[in-house]
Amino acid sequence: MNSMPTKKPKDKILEIGADLIHRKGFNNTGLQEILRAAQVPKGSFYNYFRNKEDFGLQVIDFFIRHFASIAEDILENPASTPLVRIKNILDFFIEYFESENFSRGCPIGNLSQEMGDLSPAFRNALKKAIDCMVEAYAKILVEAKIAGEIPDNLNVQETAYFIVTGWHGALLHMKIVKNVTPLENHKKYVFEYLQRPEKADQGN
Amino acid sequence: MNSMPTKKPKDKILEIGADLIHRKGFNNTGLQEILRAAQVPKGSFYNYFRNKEDFGLQVIDFFIRHFASIAEDILENPASTPLVRIKNILDFFIEYFESENFSRGCPIGNLSQEMGDLSPAFRNALKKAIDCMVEAYAKILVEAKIAGEIPDNLNVQETAYFIVTGWHGALLHMKIVKNVTPLENHKKYVFEYLQRPEKADQGN
Repeated sequence: MNSMPTKKPKDKILEIGADLIHRKGFNNTGLQEILRAAQVPKGSFYNYFRNKEDFGLQVIDFFIRHFASIAEDILENPASTPLVRIKNILDFFIEYFESENFSRGCPIGNLSQEMGDLSPAFRNALKKAIDCMVEAYAKILVEAKIAGEIPDNLNVQETAYFIVTGWHGALLHMKIVKNVTPLENHKKYVFEYLQRPEKADQGN
Repeated sequence: MNSMPTKKPKDKILEIGADLIHRKGFNNTGLQEILRAAQVPKGSFYNYFRNKEDFGLQVIDFFIRHFASIAEDILENPASTPLVRIKNILDFFIEYFESENFSRGCPIGNLSQEMGDLSPAFRNALKKAIDCMVEAYAKILVEAKIAGEIPDNLNVQETAYFIVTGWHGALLHMKIVKNVTPLENHKKYVFEYLQRPEKADQGN
């Protein structure tokens, strides 16, 4: 997410702001800091964003587009079976976090923690982001079901939600232990669940 | 966690500080605010705590003791089977979060998110707190195994870790959707996993 001189000013501010917010959180990232890092004057910022909250909401949309583009590349790759694609997207992010020394975490998870109780506008935007992740997994689980890789009676929507919430929890623990264990453990349990033997009764 | 006039000053400061940090996070809670809420002079605070970080670390120990006492009451209650006790502790916290309108989340999860990348001292204290939760679940899973309620080849330590990380992720999503769904969904998947049919191969 480094700045690129050829980008449109608004995209450049969003990309640099997204990187700062990902590293430091929303409240810890000052407007001055964003302007300095993006090398744009204050007036230019207000051409594109009403205020810092509006900027934060557009950064969440930026994260959604970013995630969607990764999900599209990996989860829609016909070279692998649906279950392998799920493994591939988890491994993609695990490698990313390894390269970041197990810091940062997911910006959507971080902002949920930071802003969930504070701002209804952020809450709506973050809900949209989480829904987008859940939908990406739900879609690939449907394909896995059609391909016969997972049980027919598996609840796709709830399982997709379980994958995303567990992932966010694992990322949170990753920041503490600073190693890959929580992420690999999550992946292991997702796959043990997906590949468990079928049983007649799926109630809780 | 309201203040009680009969408490020792240090306990009172810790309890009130813990409540503030649980609601607002560590960096958003000012020392002045803690002193005002606990009605103690600054000098008294420094009798007990070297600085704000030392205070934060002792607050984490306070949370550990608080969790341990709940876990002891519920997870060691011989009136229920081990699996029912796991359900009971999850339901206990679900009821707590319902009563708090699905705000706050787990203070250990929140602080992991907020401080994990910032302070090695916090990281150590939070690791201890997470280990304490994992151990509580591991202990009851061993009992569930002895009671024949869960498969013999279930990996107790990894499953306990999976329960705790998934719970923290569910709490994070709870703050966004402001309802019980993420917590109930987590509980459902934990129990589907624990009560799944045995299979010969438990590898990932």
